[in-house]
Amino acid sequence: MLLLRAMAGRRLPPLMQLPRGCSRLAAGSTAPEGHRGAAPAPEGHRGAAPGRHRGSIPVLAALLGLGTVLAYGERRRRTAEAAQAPRAPRYPRYTRAEVAQHRTPSERVWVTYGTDVFDVTEFVELHPGGPDKILLAAGGALEPFWALYAVHSQAHVLELLRDYKVGELSPDEASPPPGDTGDPFAGDPPRHPALRVNSLKPFNAEPPPELLTQSFLTPNELFFTRNHLPVPAVEPGSYRLRVEGPGGRALSLSLAELRQRFPKHEVTATLQCAGNRRSEMSRVRPVKGLAWDIGAISTARWGGARLRDVLLAAGVRDSTGDSTGDDSEWHVCFEGLDADASGTPYGASIPLKRALSAEAEVLLAYEMNGTELPRDHGFPVRVVVPGVVGARSVKWLRSVAVSPAESPSHWQQKDYKGFCPSVDWDSVDFGAAPAIQELPVQSAITEPRPGAAVAAGELTVKGYAWSGGGREVVRVDVSLDGGRTWREAELGPRPERGRGWAWALWELRAPVPAGARLDIVCKAVDRSYNVQPDSVAPIWNLRGVLSNAWHRVSVTVTR
Amino acid sequence: MLLLRAMAGRRLPPLMQLPRGCSRLAAGSTAPEGHRGAAPAPEGHRGAAPGRHRGSIPVLAALLGLGTVLAYGERRRRTAEAAQAPRAPRYPRYTRAEVAQHRTPSERVWVTYGTDVFDVTEFVELHPGGPDKILLAAGGALEPFWALYAVHSQAHVLELLRDYKVGELSPDEASPPPGDTGDPFAGDPPRHPALRVNSLKPFNAEPPPELLTQSFLTPNELFFTRNHLPVPAVEPGSYRLRVEGPGGRALSLSLAELRQRFPKHEVTATLQCAGNRRSEMSRVRPVKGLAWDIGAISTARWGGARLRDVLLAAGVRDSTGDSTGDDSEWHVCFEGLDADASGTPYGASIPLKRALSAEAEVLLAYEMNGTELPRDHGFPVRVVVPGVVGARSVKWLRSVAVSPAESPSHWQQKDYKGFCPSVDWDSVDFGAAPAIQELPVQSAITEPRPGAAVAAGELTVKGYAWSGGGREVVRVDVSLDGGRTWREAELGPRPERGRGWAWALWELRAPVPAGARLDIVCKAVDRSYNVQPDSVAPIWNLRGVLSNAWHRVSVTVTR
Repeated sequence: MLLLRAMAGRRLPPLMQLPRGCSRLAAGSTAPEGHRGAAPAPEGHRGAAPGRHRGSIPVLAALLGLGTVLAYGERRRRTAEAAQAPRAPRYPRYTRAEVAQHRTPSERVWVTYGTDVFDVTEFVELHPGGPDKILLAAGGALEPFWALYAVHSQAHVLELLRDYKVGELSPDEASPPPGDTGDPFAGDPPRHPALRVNSLKPFNAEPPPELLTQSFLTPNELFFTRNHLPVPAVEPGSYRLRVEGPGGRALSLSLAELRQRFPKHEVTATLQCAGNRRSEMSRVRPVKGLAWDIGAISTARWGGARLRDVLLAAGVRDSTGDSTGDDSEWHVCFEGLDADASGTPYGASIPLKRALSAEAEVLLAYEMNGTELPRDHGFPVRVVVPGVVGARSVKWLRSVAVSPAESPSHWQQKDYKGFCPSVDWDSVDFGAAPAIQELPVQSAITEPRPGAAVAAGELTVKGYAWSGGGREVVRVDVSLDGGRTWREAELGPRPERGRGWAWALWELRAPVPAGARLDIVCKAVDRSYNVQPDSVAPIWNLRGVLSNAWHRVSVTVTR
Repeated sequence: MLLLRAMAGRRLPPLMQLPRGCSRLAAGSTAPEGHRGAAPAPEGHRGAAPGRHRGSIPVLAALLGLGTVLAYGERRRRTAEAAQAPRAPRYPRYTRAEVAQHRTPSERVWVTYGTDVFDVTEFVELHPGGPDKILLAAGGALEPFWALYAVHSQAHVLELLRDYKVGELSPDEASPPPGDTGDPFAGDPPRHPALRVNSLKPFNAEPPPELLTQSFLTPNELFFTRNHLPVPAVEPGSYRLRVEGPGGRALSLSLAELRQRFPKHEVTATLQCAGNRRSEMSRVRPVKGLAWDIGAISTARWGGARLRDVLLAAGVRDSTGDSTGDDSEWHVCFEGLDADASGTPYGASIPLKRALSAEAEVLLAYEMNGTELPRDHGFPVRVVVPGVVGARSVKWLRSVAVSPAESPSHWQQKDYKGFCPSVDWDSVDFGAAPAIQELPVQSAITEPRPGAAVAAGELTVKGYAWSGGGREVVRVDVSLDGGRTWREAELGPRPERGRGWAWALWELRAPVPAGARLDIVCKAVDRSYNVQPDSVAPIWNLRGVLSNAWHRVSVTVTR
């Protein structure tokens, strides 16, 4: 929506004026001149920019139609001017490290596109998607972000960006340095720069909250990544999935066989890590585990074979109707191709009942949002168990085995379990608690961010809500006063009503007075009317899992 | 266990001494003499009693084996004495109303058995089942209680009781007065005197907490009763159940046909009223509804035909495996024979999917704990929907109908739904919330009772825990300090592990210091790791349903 920049400096009707809150952000654009000096822009390009942007009137995204018309006229005018202008000077050269030092308005906001370097400081507040979104790309390349948000794929967007060019990348910055071949993680795939990395090796990262609820389906590049081990490099042509039934009968399926022999089934499902929101639990008392914020949860449309179909083909008897059967405690065990130095693979299991249930829709997925699985998400095949903790949706699947017992894997037996707050590492008995399968009801606020200063007037609070076991979220309550009074949020559209595997995105608009301090709280209610607990301490547990207390965000309202 | 009384006055080894706490209860037996005067006992019977009981040493139930031996010798001795004694005098006559005035140790504790009246004040503290249990019968008949607890069905129990005889019922107390024939509730059945009545017409009552967790299966007589209308009088020989399939095909089944044509299936399931624990919600802000305490929940072993089998016999197609089918929103609607003055019956519905699921084990029950259904619980046939709010388990079932929509009944559409705390009777939109089906996780403390003075030393806390949807309870945390620190309670045995329809009874033993004030709190965790919310106000709703916050009981510890 860069095209809207073309309207800068024009006099607009009052409806198009930005709400007062943006004046705060505008302050960021009047950066000290000294900082400008660090990025000397070629005169022909920078000279006019401050005048054009300073005091400019940003425009609401809702007015895109008018904006397009105006931008078109503006572009024609400038194209004509450019034809008469002298040849552009040579640009200074920068390294990527130098670009990376420009990430905030006070140090100037630089981005790259191809080998060009741009100073978009003046544009930050004009970005129709919001200043917070464009700042996610600050100091780095635009391409990964533009790839996610198709609105940028228009010729005039790139053309308008050229106004901000201040330099070019040094020629030796073309390709990244070769990886350390002794590093087991050297073969890991490249990742999106917007991801917030909690651990690099193994790679564990979550999307920033601002992007998490931008769309109902999380773009693959932003989908939270929970790797326990290095990402295996799988050659799809030689891939084989081993499926073992109870009587010694086994199948070995190539990727092509998995795709062709079984009907493709699609499910829109949210996956959540058991450790989502662990960082809030750590603030009560330290826990062991990655410090996930609220982003260890994402939603995709998965495509693949039903696990049920594959198990039946492997000779497993369907006794799901027989609730008193001997096999009611049987499990289906999964192993991944990811393994530690001793060769022990990642593993987990789910009850056979769930695996065989047509309604549970457990998949051996080879597609994620319409494309083949990305390497970080299990290429070429992963399990997707809707409604169940992500840890059971084993990636880089190498084997499926029906067994009278749970998976003996560390991650099934000695991890991903909940305990009483009084249990510590001296007293814990992992055998005493059930392995987490279905997760409890959850919700979190993605906007505004903690500590933000929001504009007086109408505040929009956004977030997500989800529950395990297919228990669709039926209501989200939001409080602006720490939980004393509550309003009902509006739930966004859900593509598959009635199949409760996916989250609900929600929004609440409420008037807020200038100068107030708001303690924003959200809590969700699922189809079984389960609710979230009020506070973190009483659900604290030594591994920091199942952190689903009310989510709280404190902000101030500007005057 | 009255036989243990025979040991009174004997010197016992230290192991058999009662814990210190019982001294408090002994105080109750030293009632002012003036009260004794109100119940002049015939000399031959009362004279020796105070001497025998005062300062007597009660015995723990664990010592029953020894007690039986001692009691046998004692009985033989007294039988010999009785043969030599002069003929017993005539007893004074009392009305039931007069007996009912003696319900506490300070006003003397009287009970009746047959037409005899007994003053058991001195025995209260000796009762092996605990003083609280025997006091439930105070002022009334023993028979209903002895009928529930088989330990009383021994000849010597009755013989020992005779020592306490103080009078006889007046001859005109034999039968209760005839009912008012203009009263639609005149035909309601007799009820157990221990039930705590929340509403007499229609009859709504719950067992006292002390009895609620006495046994895993709630005795039929104590099972909480939730009637919306008068109890229908059904002649089993002419009873017909109408079952309507989707294509106009219908069955009409007699009771004998229901029993013979379909295999009997048995399920141990807990039923809970949506309004259980409503009285705690009312203390936040008034709500509309019966003031249930913690006893609107009970457990029974139900026997009957599977609803699935009956529906299939009526021509309903089994498409439960087809999760994307058009009938995923279809319901099975139930109507009762109970109807209001306009002839409108009680009604409710459940999703067709649940009705057809073999695993959901929905029953058309004709047995409750091994006997035919009592009239208050739906004789001759009721629905039992395990894991679902009691309101859907329609009693006195007259019809079952498969329908593309939910039941149009008031109780499905305009009641039994949850709302945001800000919704009041002016703003409520019953169409906006889903009808309650599965209930959220729940637990409560049944012992000690609020405000009790408990003995220093080891305290035993007891209670129940349950969750809807078959999500078995996996843990109960108990706090003695208002929720600051927690311990894990011990879960009692459950007859059918893995089938999570029934509650867990739990117990925590903990040392408590003299003089302390304890804020006892419990909270349960279910198989999906759902937990209870900390406090009531944030889940308050105008109908006072779904009251499942932490349960709190404050007690003091005696010095």
